[in-house]
Amino acid sequence: MKEWEKNIRVIAPYVPGEQPKDKNIIKLNTNENPYPPAPGVITAVREFDTDMLRLYPDTEASLLTEKLAEFYGLEQENFFVGVGSDDVLSVAFQTFFNSDMPIYFPDITYSFYKVWADMYRIPYECKKLDDDYNIVKEDYYKENGGVIFPNPNAPTAVLMPLDGVEDIIRHNQDVIVIVDEAYIDFGGESAVSLLEKYENLLVVQTFSKARSMAGMRIGYAMGSKRLISAMNDVKFSINSYTMNLPSIIIGASAVSDRQYFEDTLAKIVNTRENAKSRFKELGFTFTDSKANFIFVSHKKYRAKDIFEYLKSKNIFVRYFGTERVDNYLRITIGTDEQMDKLFEALEEYID
Amino acid sequence: MKEWEKNIRVIAPYVPGEQPKDKNIIKLNTNENPYPPAPGVITAVREFDTDMLRLYPDTEASLLTEKLAEFYGLEQENFFVGVGSDDVLSVAFQTFFNSDMPIYFPDITYSFYKVWADMYRIPYECKKLDDDYNIVKEDYYKENGGVIFPNPNAPTAVLMPLDGVEDIIRHNQDVIVIVDEAYIDFGGESAVSLLEKYENLLVVQTFSKARSMAGMRIGYAMGSKRLISAMNDVKFSINSYTMNLPSIIIGASAVSDRQYFEDTLAKIVNTRENAKSRFKELGFTFTDSKANFIFVSHKKYRAKDIFEYLKSKNIFVRYFGTERVDNYLRITIGTDEQMDKLFEALEEYID
Repeated sequence: MKEWEKNIRVIAPYVPGEQPKDKNIIKLNTNENPYPPAPGVITAVREFDTDMLRLYPDTEASLLTEKLAEFYGLEQENFFVGVGSDDVLSVAFQTFFNSDMPIYFPDITYSFYKVWADMYRIPYECKKLDDDYNIVKEDYYKENGGVIFPNPNAPTAVLMPLDGVEDIIRHNQDVIVIVDEAYIDFGGESAVSLLEKYENLLVVQTFSKARSMAGMRIGYAMGSKRLISAMNDVKFSINSYTMNLPSIIIGASAVSDRQYFEDTLAKIVNTRENAKSRFKELGFTFTDSKANFIFVSHKKYRAKDIFEYLKSKNIFVRYFGTERVDNYLRITIGTDEQMDKLFEALEEYID
Repeated sequence: MKEWEKNIRVIAPYVPGEQPKDKNIIKLNTNENPYPPAPGVITAVREFDTDMLRLYPDTEASLLTEKLAEFYGLEQENFFVGVGSDDVLSVAFQTFFNSDMPIYFPDITYSFYKVWADMYRIPYECKKLDDDYNIVKEDYYKENGGVIFPNPNAPTAVLMPLDGVEDIIRHNQDVIVIVDEAYIDFGGESAVSLLEKYENLLVVQTFSKARSMAGMRIGYAMGSKRLISAMNDVKFSINSYTMNLPSIIIGASAVSDRQYFEDTLAKIVNTRENAKSRFKELGFTFTDSKANFIFVSHKKYRAKDIFEYLKSKNIFVRYFGTERVDNYLRITIGTDEQMDKLFEALEEYID
């Protein structure tokens, strides 16, 4: 090792799902939306004034937060926007988790939480999900440095009812509580309605799933003005201009079309409920998903083997192979046609 | 203060230049390019397939690094891309400045260096520029935790010749040296040619200035595979998908047009040299700028007063008001027409 190499930070990074470049595969491995973004997005792109690219974008992304505020009936000052919800969450970890007490999050959850905690040297404790993969809310009632959990949780797809979420917040009024709602629109009830009551609550959502725009990288946090303004201070200490002009303009256009948003969600929920019946017929067990993916297991077949088999058929699903979930697959809800192909392949494989 | 507020990080953020929304102003305050991006960008936008937005982008932004590699005659693995050079530099600070020894940078320089050092709790020492605002290279020869400086420096616009840059690198082979070349294309010689010789050298550039794409937020670092791979590990511990699809596709298109790039640069350099004569006629003093801005001072008129006067005329320039530069203005080179209006206004103001 050369002398200068000693100054290089050593860290175990997050490993995202594969992004194969082959367009002939059926991609059910990263929870993308199978439907295109709202039709207004095409118009926004066609009308995009490329000359404006020479200028720095609006640091506050006002056009985007204005449309978000309209959609949720909140004020612009209640929104923080970032480069995907990962950016938003990463800034939130840096802004809010500065206690010497450990932050709490579930043992089986979005694996980036652990990576950020390591990155920012935040102490943490993982709280075990019960045997049915539910979050045990009472585990979060002890003194801590902050709380974060996804609702629905990932990769388990299990939703906590809103009164359970509120119980956790009510017991944690001395720290900041983050509810990560990447998948909430697929059948859950958002904690946004609790923002009025709890100034220490931050709700994080994304354009990547329900809004069909993973490629645009837009995430947002909703919270009290005090929380949002603290996040902006941290953001302005890292990178003033994170949202590029296409994100602001095209994002604003996408969020304006509520009808398309609801129609797309209804289609995915319908496909998901059909998929549940078919998984059941094939002998799979699974949690009652309220997300755009199903977390499945099979008594007779190993998850890893099914994963490899499907891959050989050009169908990509997600296999984690980690403790307590090593016999599970996380399968994204695609179009009806994609799901038909998935089940055809599974029927061939399973007796 | 409520109990939960105690966990909020308190930090003094970077304050970027004003981005007024009024389109009638002459904006010479944030070093943007007065010319639009390469014509191919329009085609890239028109042909953009919005359906692809539903998918996550390529985490490696391969299309973009491929075009950059072609442009510079390097390999793709020598490039790290991020959301503007601020993102790239911020990741570089986290990746490379982990020594207990202080990092060195100039006392008058890009003010974000100090903000990142504070943010990431990196010890630092500022080395004083000489009275003509030159970096004194010998000041950087002592044992340290890393070195960073812009070349040309900002807001001074002073260029260090490449042999001076190499002297600093040669004396700092046990740490990582970052040369921040946001403005290098306007008349300087890039340290890219030194990458073959020094594995511990990182050169950072941007699409925001010479490539007329501040609104797209693309920055990049060039360095040895060892350095780039370490930066990727850190990036994957913060946010896996930073470059959105428009940045990748439209960025790749912009970098492919070398002729337009060179023509635009030639125009700006020509306007700058004319501006120098006119500033001189008006009694201004200034450093010999090799950037797309001029750092000017006037013996008879206070910088702050000129700044306010120009603002009242709808001409925005940058005034910092900080130690040692409080009687200076940083004025971006606009089009010839914009500069004519600037000088008309100044002629009215100055006897």
